[in-house]
Amino acid sequence: MRARVEIRFRPGVLDPEAAAIARALGHLGFAGVRGVRRAKVLEIDLATEDADAARAEVERMCEVLLANPVIETYRIELLDRG
Amino acid sequence: MRARVEIRFRPGVLDPEAAAIARALGHLGFAGVRGVRRAKVLEIDLATEDADAARAEVERMCEVLLANPVIETYRIELLDRG
Repeated sequence: MRARVEIRFRPGVLDPEAAAIARALGHLGFAGVRGVRRAKVLEIDLATEDADAARAEVERMCEVLLANPVIETYRIELLDRG
Repeated sequence: MRARVEIRFRPGVLDPEAAAIARALGHLGFAGVRGVRRAKVLEIDLATEDADAARAEVERMCEVLLANPVIETYRIELLDRG
């Protein structure tokens, strides 16, 4: 089955890349940009078809590799294999 | 209003970072990982409350800055300001 993980900075954590994008958009004439936030999505194809096992496995992946829990939060969603 | 843009590589474009993540997960003992794909999400707060204007503006942003149409595709979604 397929899992989708969305990883983003916790509120209040500075994101220089998002700030640079917002600034660049302003310089390019997009005057209506009030703010930009960024997130990272990982879609992971898993051998298991058991939703509980898949969620538990992806949670462990987030804890050990995919996310930095000090500054990031993550949200796991299970998808039918697309 | 808020726009959410999801940018990902076109099918067939090599993504070394996604491949590295898949490999690292395997090394960490996650044997059930069949593949990893990556996407980037940008949430952009816009001054306009007109959905058509917002979509057109964000499409222009994608064309001139946010995406590389040679190797990436993007999908724009308009959200209520959250």
